[in-house]
Amino acid sequence: MTSASLLTATPLAAATDVLLTRYQAVRHQTEALCRPLLPEDTVVQPVIDVSPPKWHLAHTTWFFETFLLAQFQPGYQVFHPDYAFLFNSYYNSLGSRVNRADRGTLSRPALDDVYAYRAHVDERMRELLLSQAAQAEDFASLLELGLQHEQQHQELLVTDIKYILSTSPLAPAYLPASSDSQEVSRPLPAAAWLPVAGGIHRIGYEGAGFCFDNEQAPHETYVADFELQNRLVTNADYLRFIEAGGYADFRYWLGEGWELVQQQQWAAPLYWVQKPAGWFRFTHHGLLPLDLAAPVTHVSFYEADAYAHWAGARLPTEQEWEIAARQFRPEAAAGTFLESRSFDPQPLPADADPTQCHQLLGDVWEWTYSAYHPYPGYERAAGALGEYNGKFMLNQLVLRGGSCATPESHIRLTYRNFFHADKRWQFTGIRLAR
Amino acid sequence: MTSASLLTATPLAAATDVLLTRYQAVRHQTEALCRPLLPEDTVVQPVIDVSPPKWHLAHTTWFFETFLLAQFQPGYQVFHPDYAFLFNSYYNSLGSRVNRADRGTLSRPALDDVYAYRAHVDERMRELLLSQAAQAEDFASLLELGLQHEQQHQELLVTDIKYILSTSPLAPAYLPASSDSQEVSRPLPAAAWLPVAGGIHRIGYEGAGFCFDNEQAPHETYVADFELQNRLVTNADYLRFIEAGGYADFRYWLGEGWELVQQQQWAAPLYWVQKPAGWFRFTHHGLLPLDLAAPVTHVSFYEADAYAHWAGARLPTEQEWEIAARQFRPEAAAGTFLESRSFDPQPLPADADPTQCHQLLGDVWEWTYSAYHPYPGYERAAGALGEYNGKFMLNQLVLRGGSCATPESHIRLTYRNFFHADKRWQFTGIRLAR
Amino acid sequence: MTSASLLTATPLAAATDVLLTRYQAVRHQTEALCRPLLPEDTVVQPVIDVSPPKWHLAHTTWFFETFLLAQFQPGYQVFHPDYAFLFNSYYNSLGSRVNRADRGTLSRPALDDVYAYRAHVDERMRELLLSQAAQAEDFASLLELGLQHEQQHQELLVTDIKYILSTSPLAPAYLPASSDSQEVSRPLPAAAWLPVAGGIHRIGYEGAGFCFDNEQAPHETYVADFELQNRLVTNADYLRFIEAGGYADFRYWLGEGWELVQQQQWAAPLYWVQKPAGWFRFTHHGLLPLDLAAPVTHVSFYEADAYAHWAGARLPTEQEWEIAARQFRPEAAAGTFLESRSFDPQPLPADADPTQCHQLLGDVWEWTYSAYHPYPGYERAAGALGEYNGKFMLNQLVLRGGSCATPESHIRLTYRNFFHADKRWQFTGIRLAR
Amino acid sequence: MTSASLLTATPLAAATDVLLTRYQAVRHQTEALCRPLLPEDTVVQPVIDVSPPKWHLAHTTWFFETFLLAQFQPGYQVFHPDYAFLFNSYYNSLGSRVNRADRGTLSRPALDDVYAYRAHVDERMRELLLSQAAQAEDFASLLELGLQHEQQHQELLVTDIKYILSTSPLAPAYLPASSDSQEVSRPLPAAAWLPVAGGIHRIGYEGAGFCFDNEQAPHETYVADFELQNRLVTNADYLRFIEAGGYADFRYWLGEGWELVQQQQWAAPLYWVQKPAGWFRFTHHGLLPLDLAAPVTHVSFYEADAYAHWAGARLPTEQEWEIAARQFRPEAAAGTFLESRSFDPQPLPADADPTQCHQLLGDVWEWTYSAYHPYPGYERAAGALGEYNGKFMLNQLVLRGGSCATPESHIRLTYRNFFHADKRWQFTGIRLAR
Repeated sequence: MTSASLLTATPLAAATDVLLTRYQAVRHQTEALCRPLLPEDTVVQPVIDVSPPKWHLAHTTWFFETFLLAQFQPGYQVFHPDYAFLFNSYYNSLGSRVNRADRGTLSRPALDDVYAYRAHVDERMRELLLSQAAQAEDFASLLELGLQHEQQHQELLVTDIKYILSTSPLAPAYLPASSDSQEVSRPLPAAAWLPVAGGIHRIGYEGAGFCFDNEQAPHETYVADFELQNRLVTNADYLRFIEAGGYADFRYWLGEGWELVQQQQWAAPLYWVQKPAGWFRFTHHGLLPLDLAAPVTHVSFYEADAYAHWAGARLPTEQEWEIAARQFRPEAAAGTFLESRSFDPQPLPADADPTQCHQLLGDVWEWTYSAYHPYPGYERAAGALGEYNGKFMLNQLVLRGGSCATPESHIRLTYRNFFHADKRWQFTGIRLAR
Repeated sequence: MTSASLLTATPLAAATDVLLTRYQAVRHQTEALCRPLLPEDTVVQPVIDVSPPKWHLAHTTWFFETFLLAQFQPGYQVFHPDYAFLFNSYYNSLGSRVNRADRGTLSRPALDDVYAYRAHVDERMRELLLSQAAQAEDFASLLELGLQHEQQHQELLVTDIKYILSTSPLAPAYLPASSDSQEVSRPLPAAAWLPVAGGIHRIGYEGAGFCFDNEQAPHETYVADFELQNRLVTNADYLRFIEAGGYADFRYWLGEGWELVQQQQWAAPLYWVQKPAGWFRFTHHGLLPLDLAAPVTHVSFYEADAYAHWAGARLPTEQEWEIAARQFRPEAAAGTFLESRSFDPQPLPADADPTQCHQLLGDVWEWTYSAYHPYPGYERAAGALGEYNGKFMLNQLVLRGGSCATPESHIRLTYRNFFHADKRWQFTGIRLAR
Repeated sequence: MTSASLLTATPLAAATDVLLTRYQAVRHQTEALCRPLLPEDTVVQPVIDVSPPKWHLAHTTWFFETFLLAQFQPGYQVFHPDYAFLFNSYYNSLGSRVNRADRGTLSRPALDDVYAYRAHVDERMRELLLSQAAQAEDFASLLELGLQHEQQHQELLVTDIKYILSTSPLAPAYLPASSDSQEVSRPLPAAAWLPVAGGIHRIGYEGAGFCFDNEQAPHETYVADFELQNRLVTNADYLRFIEAGGYADFRYWLGEGWELVQQQQWAAPLYWVQKPAGWFRFTHHGLLPLDLAAPVTHVSFYEADAYAHWAGARLPTEQEWEIAARQFRPEAAAGTFLESRSFDPQPLPADADPTQCHQLLGDVWEWTYSAYHPYPGYERAAGALGEYNGKFMLNQLVLRGGSCATPESHIRLTYRNFFHADKRWQFTGIRLAR
Repeated sequence: MTSASLLTATPLAAATDVLLTRYQAVRHQTEALCRPLLPEDTVVQPVIDVSPPKWHLAHTTWFFETFLLAQFQPGYQVFHPDYAFLFNSYYNSLGSRVNRADRGTLSRPALDDVYAYRAHVDERMRELLLSQAAQAEDFASLLELGLQHEQQHQELLVTDIKYILSTSPLAPAYLPASSDSQEVSRPLPAAAWLPVAGGIHRIGYEGAGFCFDNEQAPHETYVADFELQNRLVTNADYLRFIEAGGYADFRYWLGEGWELVQQQQWAAPLYWVQKPAGWFRFTHHGLLPLDLAAPVTHVSFYEADAYAHWAGARLPTEQEWEIAARQFRPEAAAGTFLESRSFDPQPLPADADPTQCHQLLGDVWEWTYSAYHPYPGYERAAGALGEYNGKFMLNQLVLRGGSCATPESHIRLTYRNFFHADKRWQFTGIRLAR
């Protein structure tokens, strides 16, 4: 088995120039996200989950250098001998590396040096793509993996930048706010319950395009009849939970969650700020009034589960989510993705059809009450890429559907994202089941 | 819904004297376990997971005082006003309590005072059992819960006593070793694979006796065809993993497990000691030579999973385990339980029928690769007993089958035990699936 | 230089039977202190500073075994090969040992085994003392050191026992309270200032008896004229500081002290408890009303310094203290020592002569604003005993005068005790200078 | 007492334009130190002791804004309402502030904004200096304090920049190395001992110029005769200690130091790197070969003390140091100061007069074995400036003489610097006494 077996589906054969265009578009997208930043913003790491933007820029480049150039470009010399140590994330197969917690201590290499590294690798990748070597067996798969990997880091860039800017009392805006972001929508009508028939269903990826290894093997699963809400929980919904004393009543909480609430003195989602004039949220556009119709986001699994408990419902399992999503066949374009550059989940129009299931893709990652474990038949790839997903399959929860920070071409109904239950800096949200 | 709804099945109606006899037998069993201890042994807490035996003796008594005497005995006065603070384990509903990590700092109340507390409560319970109040609606359910709860603490007493005695370099024996425990069995023949047919199966408890709320609701589940090994992994099996460098090769390990291996310098199961004369294990009978045919025990989930990985297999899910166990209908008496007072899992006879599935109940708790999450239809009870199980349903793994420290009358095929993946002080072991 | 050089003064030549009597008296005193304890009390270690009484009993015995029996008794076999690992306190020269923080995890050896160890060593010491070997050059010095060392641990036993019993909400009494300990004295008249003339003075030990190496070399020192208070700060004095908001005003505090006040939420000395009926203190006799005329005790250096600051004064240096003490020549018998078995500092009689300097010896250790550094000419002994004092000479403060837990024969005007500034579990108190 | 009493000596009356020139020179010096940095370098905080250069630039500016402009400029409006929260270091009197450990999480305000802050305050200070208000009573004292304060931060900038650049494996140079810094000097001849007569001496500042409050009151002190080495301990000297196994022998070490050696695996001074080609040191000019004749630097007190122990000598007290320094009247210009921009202590010429005491000022701060405690007669100032020095007077050691990072006009023979015993990132070094 080769390392390309991480890609269990056959990637589409594509003409070289199409691949090059796609490569350049993805790489350019990353840099466009970093353009509004100052050099100062690109080096700090205020908490261990957040990596410095400079590190993201370099790490994604190291990925192409290590898995493409070093393997397919004969005689390739690495750009700098220390960069593997600096920009390897977690691949034990590839040697020692900077402690994750110390990424924010490194002012050097400078941001300009990292851009030079990107330019160098991009130029060599261009040569490689136009060469005969690009016809090698695993090449297209690994290239696709590198691009998908870079898209994952684009999402992290969006959320890490938000966190970085949020730590300053100056509440600096990443981008100027548009005039209409000051407006607050009216709360939506109550969510409707959509019934889904149980039975044996097939889930997991089995198409011809790209998927991650953790979406495989496709397999049968059984669920009983259930109901799912037709939209995400909104800020208005969640505010009722807060105002009902939800953060002060241990009965709604898992034990670990209740300890966190007390230790961290959680009383609202991350980034919420209560002022005399009401609730505000820190956003990529600075501090804005809370939009009542928008989906609640930046909640931990503990908060999502406590909210569901309080509301007399529960979170769906990932099996239920995928079965319902396949049934309601969402138009992916309907949700909010990275490309919108809104960097915030958007309210559902008040006149949205209540018999449809909205916001399944984009806007916010939906917490499920499913542990991130291997699917039946899952196999770790050999070599370094076997560390991509498999070694994380414990003590995390599956999230589904992508968010407003996810590139639209990156998401699928079968996509399994995963975070620890306490994480709040991603665009995470809630959909209820029962 | 009353607090008794933790007991979702109707307990058997039983004559008062039968209940009293059973009550006294269970209570006596706890004290018999503590009899070989010195007062010094009953107060220490060498790690946070281990509670002082004195605390177990008192906490189980507090349980009867709080949930039975205080509710059903009119005008009952608590034995001591500070004992609720001292001996409540984790019930937020019942007020503040000693930090779990500080249980081992309390030399008082003295052991004799705790025995006096037990005698006092036992006498009042006897009166209550013989009174009219024992006919009240929830009484029998709560009594049964109190007895099951005390049996759980009997198992903890066995494992906590082992840990407490193990910390001394003197390796003191809890009980003298019998002459034959110095003998080492020959390794068993290789385990055989037993096929189990997939499809929709029903799991969870639905009989008329007692079960914990986490075993409910009974429900359908689907599994594909699979195979399970006919016996537990032995010390000889596991030694091959060690000798093959299993603890030094990150490829077999989950990421978190690999970090633990390095931080804690794990190189063998807990209690194993390598001497010039070979491998030994600390046991309730002191340091004894490793018995090659006995099931390996005191391994974490990480070690169980790495072993399975190395062996080209995997751990079963809890669904697979229960489906197979129902199919092979183990004779519960065949395994090793608390009542044997061997305090160690026992080797399978070399002539055991290879077409049967052995050691399903007793000997060691079997790690499954299933998160401890609520079953479909699970409901937390109202009141303090709602905290018994439900709030722990995250970031732990299900273990099945009971161990040599489990009272025989306490275990069932549907019983769901749960521990964090790093825990090793329980009698935990491995059975492979594929 | 031999290891006996820790004893820089020549010990008095004494007849063998006198030495034996003294040896037995000191050893007996230790056991008498432990007699009121339950076995449970002798194993716990609620904080790292506090050692289990069982450990004290064994460690002092190990000291005689290691430094006397093993050196002077030909062919001496140690009582148990593991006891050096278990009961060595901090001598790197003598090999590895149990982590200090883990002393409270060891239930074994049992208390009875430790008493058997004491009896064994005492019998062998008796033989040794009556033998020719007792005439060896260093013998008498090392014997004296062993006895002084055991007296130091007697003081620690008194304070550690108090802490151990204090952690239980039951507030158990070590000894029954006498009828008069419930009485509260009237506050004393204000303290008087006694002038002391400055100039060059000689300090440090230079007599013919025993002293510790840290009291040497005797040397000249210069101080300016100063004044010292004629008595210790009382509970009434200190209560005024509390009531004036002393714990809430950072201006009185050293930076580190202020952080501790906030982190630990200090609002009174250790063991003080405020009840509706007023202030109480936990004592060896259980919870008793605060005695206003008694010296304040169980205060950290930070509290002593903040109090002095608030009172418009300062703490003395150790040079000032010794110069004043030599001038006022206290009658040692006047203070409260261990032998009184009151285990609490006692009020000064209201009619005490205000021109005298009272309470210099006994009652409470007096914090000085002097770092515990080597005296000019100080030399560490070679060998293990060089670790007795010298390696602790940093980041601690000198305390003078002994306390109600100090054996009367153990204290001297030149005696230098030392603790970190945050410690409160010793009988520490305050005398003001200016 | 006014806040200006921190300056117990009367500052020289100076013409306004002289003051302005001096103000501008000091402020310019700070910016010149930061000029070689990239914006990325100015935000990180790799360890808690090291502050981001951006923070130093702003904090020193806040000091002038708070203590000068806000007090003397009628109607002064602060530059930004959040900057006091961001750039107050440790003044409780002046309200809450960013946690010290979080200084490196703040990417904003941007470096350019901080320079704008500096320009704004400098312009307003220029106006103030040229106004009548500059004649107010405390003005000159506070101005001088602000300038001395900024000089202290210049030294910290030099050492913090070094640490920041050192964390990258790229070993970037702050400034290009001159051609001669690659040369390694020959070891110096052995140091000579200079006798100093004991007796009563007067120490502490009593001139007419500026001093910090901790240098006062001037007072008599007594020392016995002693000897001091005529030069600093060199790298060659220290290398012998390393090669003799000094880091592996607990006998030379204070207890706390020995624990650190083992925990941190110290085996050489900070910044030393052993390569096949020999020992190198990270410097402001990148990695350079170890210069054997240069003074050893970046050693903790523990290392200095252990070295002295090994060498059969000891460290001087601060009293001894000042008495000797006054006797040998160093020409301040002889040492290496910040203005040299060498950023490294320099070797003594091989032909230096051995009867003189060299390197007393500049090159490296010399550890003394004196606790940083108040001098007799020391008084904390009222108000915020009372927090400048007094609250740190515990658990730190005095260092004397200034270093190659100290502005020449900033140092005095009476100057008392202070650090905790484990600190190594300052230019600290060793001179022996006996």
